[in-house]
Amino acid sequence: VPLKTISILGVGLLGGSIGLATKSLITGCKIIGYGHRPATLSAAIERGAIDQGTTNLQQAVADCDLVILCTPVGLFRPIIQQIAPVLSDFAIVTDVGSTKRSVVELAAKHLRRPERFVASHPMAGSEKRGVEFARSDLFKDALCLTTPTALTDPQALAEVEQFWRLLGMRITRLSPQEHDRWIGQISHLPHAVAAALVTMQDQASLALAGKGFMDATRIAAGDAGLWRDIFLDNRDNLSAGIQRMKAELDRLLMALDANDEEAVMAWLDAAASMRQAMTKEKQ
Amino acid sequence: VPLKTISILGVGLLGGSIGLATKSLITGCKIIGYGHRPATLSAAIERGAIDQGTTNLQQAVADCDLVILCTPVGLFRPIIQQIAPVLSDFAIVTDVGSTKRSVVELAAKHLRRPERFVASHPMAGSEKRGVEFARSDLFKDALCLTTPTALTDPQALAEVEQFWRLLGMRITRLSPQEHDRWIGQISHLPHAVAAALVTMQDQASLALAGKGFMDATRIAAGDAGLWRDIFLDNRDNLSAGIQRMKAELDRLLMALDANDEEAVMAWLDAAASMRQAMTKEKQ
Repeated sequence: VPLKTISILGVGLLGGSIGLATKSLITGCKIIGYGHRPATLSAAIERGAIDQGTTNLQQAVADCDLVILCTPVGLFRPIIQQIAPVLSDFAIVTDVGSTKRSVVELAAKHLRRPERFVASHPMAGSEKRGVEFARSDLFKDALCLTTPTALTDPQALAEVEQFWRLLGMRITRLSPQEHDRWIGQISHLPHAVAAALVTMQDQASLALAGKGFMDATRIAAGDAGLWRDIFLDNRDNLSAGIQRMKAELDRLLMALDANDEEAVMAWLDAAASMRQAMTKEKQ
Repeated sequence: VPLKTISILGVGLLGGSIGLATKSLITGCKIIGYGHRPATLSAAIERGAIDQGTTNLQQAVADCDLVILCTPVGLFRPIIQQIAPVLSDFAIVTDVGSTKRSVVELAAKHLRRPERFVASHPMAGSEKRGVEFARSDLFKDALCLTTPTALTDPQALAEVEQFWRLLGMRITRLSPQEHDRWIGQISHLPHAVAAALVTMQDQASLALAGKGFMDATRIAAGDAGLWRDIFLDNRDNLSAGIQRMKAELDRLLMALDANDEEAVMAWLDAAASMRQAMTKEKQ
């Protein structure tokens, strides 16, 4: 079934990039963008990311084949509640949120046809925000996680995964619970840690920051509101991750306090070996 | 005074890069490399980083104008003890170590003319090691910290700083104590944190690692032996940094446990604003 009309709810970096990628890769597909600020919609139209924009949520989704939630995850509840009554029976709904348990629950609770909701997490983006940083190749060669449940219509799942593949992504399926646990550990925790590393600096140390510090903390520049939503939504997994992080640092503290060369070496070597192997694998 | 002979003790990434940079920027200067493995010395000669190599430490420094310690900091004590008896009276000695209190103390204790030792920390390098990754432009536009003391001969200090400037670096002077405190906070602590972030992952989470995680943990791939020396040498400052890091994470934990949107937002926003300002400053 060819996609005729796609509705992108939230035309920031991700929504805008989906628009640009779709328009460059799928012909004959109309893209409607929703946003609460007319200026954002104008900018998205100017950039060619959407064909038309509206600040009316229900208008944005009426008669669409595919609706993609691209706002911060904290807005998913009101959006899903508002679009539920006007979605057509054939519409497929997906999202790009960094947490998955809550949105799956919201869809199951509020949508008339929850089986046609397919939760997605395209792992692309940057610390930048806004449609002005959108790129048609943002998703190329990146990983997209989908988290279908027993409720999910296999046909809808296949169509959503096919859409992400068209944009250049590889697909990995997980349960919403697995997703939030592993992503909490490999993405949300590193963000918290990078933010803490930045905050604890002062003018004297910041003046000495080199490339290593800039790389290690780049993610901390990400939009605070967007990350607040993610942190709160996944706070059980994030809290558990922080506790494990503190325990890992305590192991180093003990080795340092004891001036134990072998223990410090073993601690550092385990990390260096793992990290070097990751670089090799990505090559 | 033109430099006629430079002795580079340890021809890895940093030593090799100093050799390459010197040969491309200073004419008529002979470079002698010391290493304990003949194969490393051959590789350094082949790359054009040194003119001749020796595995005899005392031969390497005899009759040299400038001696540069480029080994891991854990080797500074035996090296300084061994070169002390054979250094000529006019020789200037410097180093490239990432800690400064201990080397300043070693020089004061063991060198016949400690006033001609100028401690340096050129802030360049990468997680790579070995002369095969050496680059003549490694130091270009980077920061070099010098940590003179009341003992330091101003003429020797001026000559060493002029040498680093010739290699393209900016100079900042600090006391050895300030250096180890601030560098502990902006460089050694981030390394420890990145290593902990890597070690606590498992196969399931590693499979989902994106660009953010790779950037945030790149430094953790650095040579474990080199970093063991640094961690042990600066363990008081590093331990204090880890404690502050844990306190910072505890502030987030409390906000998460209380599901306190405003506190989580404030915590994230402080870091994002600081980090965004750093990016702007570097531009």
